[in-house]
Amino acid sequence: MIAQDVREVLDRYAPAIARALENAVPTVPGALGPIHDAMRYSLSAGGKRLRPALCFASAEAVGGTVQDALAPAAALELIHTYSLIHDDLPCMDDDDLRRGRPTSHKVYGEAMAVLAGDGLLTRAFGLLAEGDGMPAERRAEMVRILARAAGSQGMVGGQALDLAAEGSEDVDLPTLQYIHTHKTGALFRAACCLGAVAGGGDAAQVAALGSFGEKIGLAFQIVDDVLDETGKAEDLGKNAGRDRERGKATYPRLMGLEESRRRVDELGEEARAQAEAFGAEGRHLAVLAGYVTQRTA
Amino acid sequence: MIAQDVREVLDRYAPAIARALENAVPTVPGALGPIHDAMRYSLSAGGKRLRPALCFASAEAVGGTVQDALAPAAALELIHTYSLIHDDLPCMDDDDLRRGRPTSHKVYGEAMAVLAGDGLLTRAFGLLAEGDGMPAERRAEMVRILARAAGSQGMVGGQALDLAAEGSEDVDLPTLQYIHTHKTGALFRAACCLGAVAGGGDAAQVAALGSFGEKIGLAFQIVDDVLDETGKAEDLGKNAGRDRERGKATYPRLMGLEESRRRVDELGEEARAQAEAFGAEGRHLAVLAGYVTQRTA
Repeated sequence: MIAQDVREVLDRYAPAIARALENAVPTVPGALGPIHDAMRYSLSAGGKRLRPALCFASAEAVGGTVQDALAPAAALELIHTYSLIHDDLPCMDDDDLRRGRPTSHKVYGEAMAVLAGDGLLTRAFGLLAEGDGMPAERRAEMVRILARAAGSQGMVGGQALDLAAEGSEDVDLPTLQYIHTHKTGALFRAACCLGAVAGGGDAAQVAALGSFGEKIGLAFQIVDDVLDETGKAEDLGKNAGRDRERGKATYPRLMGLEESRRRVDELGEEARAQAEAFGAEGRHLAVLAGYVTQRTA
Repeated sequence: MIAQDVREVLDRYAPAIARALENAVPTVPGALGPIHDAMRYSLSAGGKRLRPALCFASAEAVGGTVQDALAPAAALELIHTYSLIHDDLPCMDDDDLRRGRPTSHKVYGEAMAVLAGDGLLTRAFGLLAEGDGMPAERRAEMVRILARAAGSQGMVGGQALDLAAEGSEDVDLPTLQYIHTHKTGALFRAACCLGAVAGGGDAAQVAALGSFGEKIGLAFQIVDDVLDETGKAEDLGKNAGRDRERGKATYPRLMGLEESRRRVDELGEEARAQAEAFGAEGRHLAVLAGYVTQRTA
């Protein structure tokens, strides 16, 4: 269940991101149709569009508009979606179910799933570069930020660390945090930085929102681990308890459920305070911070 | 065997591209070391760096320098290398040998190979966006061109078409050409366009070099198919005859060896004439056109 204030913020952003994604990856007639269908299948599975929402709210926090942040918001969702497709592959996490639907490779086969992911990843950068009358300096800066966050020193690097850690007995808390800072945190951080850049924020604002995004990203991951321990498949839209089955290191395993929840609350408070420093313009960000830390699915 | 003039051109460009790739994907200490090692393994397998060479020669054709085109040349090789890693995966072409060495997934496992490819793809765009004091307008334009060429309407789309055509009996010549225009041609075209943009070419020059690149790309693919029929594994650095084994449509199968060679010569002549229209500045391009059409490995 999502609280009323969160619902309002997400609902406010929903049509914009839906339209931006539709324009970013349209249906294509003819022989190139199937690859685009595969890309659209995973995009249309929905999810809460949390990264785009953080991007929009960050743009607003620095005095920009949702319109300003359309390209980066869509690019973030393209990157997030590609990472899910590749993570779900049999050679990676081998998941059959994602957002309540069969995963890409179950529907289109492994080869097409690899390619659909590659196509989404590539499109994300094209979208940022085209950028809707945005000054070129800002477009290039956004590509730089997203490439760094999504690449081998960010999300892809974190995924590699996660693989290496799987089944290992000696993953301690600093290691786990290092993994998640890269695997999940980098893209949350980028979501807020990109929104700030797109909205015309100055360097100090971009940095402040980056720090906010980092906290939200870490909180998000801890909550994810907690829900994997305690949640139900029908709420999560994926199989619960998978991490435990695989012997993966998680926050609840390393510091206990109660301490995990306490840490989430703490991060939520810090993030909310940072959002509120932006005054009335930061209110949507603050609501999203509350959501990430209190979500039950 | 490579002719003397081609050797000279490639040797002239070799140190620049080697250094650019080394800087683009350096060794990284600590936990993120292994993913970067995997990325570097495939990059260091070498190959002829043909796309970078075309990029450099295109920059020179419009009056620019090798230095101007370092970032796009490296980005092209990153994209090309990622595409080889993903193409070689068991779920795709399932190749064990590439450029004379075991493929990425044979060395690092499938999951790391997927991630190494993702990392290289992402880094390509970061590199273009950072861009060495190049005006932002030009950097953003290069990202746009490369994303289009490498994505689902270009290389990734072509790879999807190629998969769909595999084992099919009714791949005719227009279909085969459509596949290769996307799968191989788009990146060759982009190599020349990017060089032209980086070298400061005007719109007409960028378009002319794009057309040159398209012809070279098509010729390259036909020669590839011919060599798969006639070449030896030790020359190619990969297993010959694989296309035939898999019943893949190839130019020699659809129009015969002799007609394939005639078509290559024709494309080579056209491309050489386009290169020579750039005068003395186009001489390296003309040499490369000769190489692509006459290579034996």
